[in-house]
Amino acid sequence: MDPGVAFGQVLRGLRREAGLSQEQLAFSAEIERNFVSLIERGVNQPSIRVIFKLAHALGISASQMLLLVENKMLDGLRSD
Amino acid sequence: MDPGVAFGQVLRGLRREAGLSQEQLAFSAEIERNFVSLIERGVNQPSIRVIFKLAHALGISASQMLLLVENKMLDGLRSD
Repeated sequence: MDPGVAFGQVLRGLRREAGLSQEQLAFSAEIERNFVSLIERGVNQPSIRVIFKLAHALGISASQMLLLVENKMLDGLRSD
Repeated sequence: MDPGVAFGQVLRGLRREAGLSQEQLAFSAEIERNFVSLIERGVNQPSIRVIFKLAHALGISASQMLLLVENKMLDGLRSD
């Protein structure tokens, strides 16, 4: 699984757990709402700056977020 | 400290510890050599895909690499 695709799935999961709309998350992270949608669908690869903004807005660290991404990628391998 | 700047400093440190030139790291990570230079100088913000490629080439996980970036950013705050 591509890291960008895994990141998008993790992002969507964390956003929903937090009870936030894409618009609310975008506002909090100071990025475009459309960008949240593109990242969640794995279309757009977030930069390190955007990763930190999103993690901060979700109340976790960027490294914790990437740990979830790595676990997601491993899950993807296991289910292949 | 901007996450991109901190990432560049961490990347340079890890690359030197590994005894690799920018060209060798670029080859191993399958990215342009010039791109390694731009990232190390904090000019270019790496995408999540590039972060994973660089971490893999350096033999650490992407989440471990971001942990080092977070520590670097905290160091930056302390020395302000």
